[in-house]
Amino acid sequence: MKKALVLLSGGLDSTTVLAIAKNLGYEIYALSFSYGQRHKIELEAAKNIAEKFVVKEHKIANIDLRLFGQSALTADIAVPKNAINLDKIPVTYVPARNTIFLSFALAYAETVGSFDIFIGVNAVDYSNYPDCRSEFILAFEKLANLATAAGDKNEGNFKIHAPLIKMSKKEIIETGLKLGVDYSLTHSCYDPIIINNKAKPCGKCDSCILRLQGFAEGNLQDPLMHQ
Amino acid sequence: MKKALVLLSGGLDSTTVLAIAKNLGYEIYALSFSYGQRHKIELEAAKNIAEKFVVKEHKIANIDLRLFGQSALTADIAVPKNAINLDKIPVTYVPARNTIFLSFALAYAETVGSFDIFIGVNAVDYSNYPDCRSEFILAFEKLANLATAAGDKNEGNFKIHAPLIKMSKKEIIETGLKLGVDYSLTHSCYDPIIINNKAKPCGKCDSCILRLQGFAEGNLQDPLMHQ
Repeated sequence: MKKALVLLSGGLDSTTVLAIAKNLGYEIYALSFSYGQRHKIELEAAKNIAEKFVVKEHKIANIDLRLFGQSALTADIAVPKNAINLDKIPVTYVPARNTIFLSFALAYAETVGSFDIFIGVNAVDYSNYPDCRSEFILAFEKLANLATAAGDKNEGNFKIHAPLIKMSKKEIIETGLKLGVDYSLTHSCYDPIIINNKAKPCGKCDSCILRLQGFAEGNLQDPLMHQ
Repeated sequence: MKKALVLLSGGLDSTTVLAIAKNLGYEIYALSFSYGQRHKIELEAAKNIAEKFVVKEHKIANIDLRLFGQSALTADIAVPKNAINLDKIPVTYVPARNTIFLSFALAYAETVGSFDIFIGVNAVDYSNYPDCRSEFILAFEKLANLATAAGDKNEGNFKIHAPLIKMSKKEIIETGLKLGVDYSLTHSCYDPIIINNKAKPCGKCDSCILRLQGFAEGNLQDPLMHQ
């Protein structure tokens, strides 16, 4: 059984990617990060999703990106509300985040003997982050094969799978629903409101807006917004 | 003043690189890792060296690579002794380590506005690690410019400096000595013997052998071996 390494944040995109990899018949190794993000709720979501999809293994790497700060997701900077602007990189950008995430995924993949790394980046309905584009993914794939003993010995060819990269949010959601994803388990909001230990999405950050638009365009209801 | 990001392990190579960057007139931001290595002595060495070279800032990132295991440096696997073999990748190889280290360096560099990242990789007197070769360094440099907001906005061009890559260990040591490096502060051994809270190099692991050979070829004495 081929093994896949899936980067799982607990959000809508990475959960859909997990469903896609599972549907392709891979045995799943999921990797999440405790990176100093404002809310650990997404890690709880990731755990629940990993369990639901019966992954082979789910690891959570502790890496404190607050060490460098500078992002609204890791430092004391306000998350912008109702301010989506697809021509600019927003303050929620975390320097080199996907490079760091993919580097860890590569280490994990090499350790378990997987050559297939799945990541939920998207370059259509996204926040204009540079590390979500095809050129970045291709550059990392090239690097992966030069960086590792497994690549060096030609034991396999690392492939970075980014199945959502050209999909709209609507298409992502429709794909996930076909594969049985329960989106009520996912968490997307950058700045949730916590009520009785439950996270309610703010509905106003870029991530909420893109998610809401996706459901609306598909004439679907977001189960998270109607709980 | 131009800023340089220097990966500093506390070993002979990275300390020489720090001296080179300092000599080129850069303001230094040093980055070390607590990654689950067997001995924290190298972090103590890194701190002392950073202090000696009056760096602008020295950060230590906590990333536990024991999560993935598989290497003699991060798992319960014996460090090979008197067994250097430059045709094989040894068990001290840590999957994707330099990719992870450079990813963090990139995040740190972008945060402080540096475009110059220095790393002490060497492809002559080295342990045959794939992530020490020029092709790897060039691939990471390409990635860095695609991965970041700073690269995307053309605020600068990230350059990965690997000034030791084609030097022999002897040349590295001679370069460092000319620049005033005190090699008694550095630590290279993979498996030191701890006596009275002091680390004595084993003299038999690959790292010790390469270091000893370098000093011997230059008709020099390693201050660490004669303390």
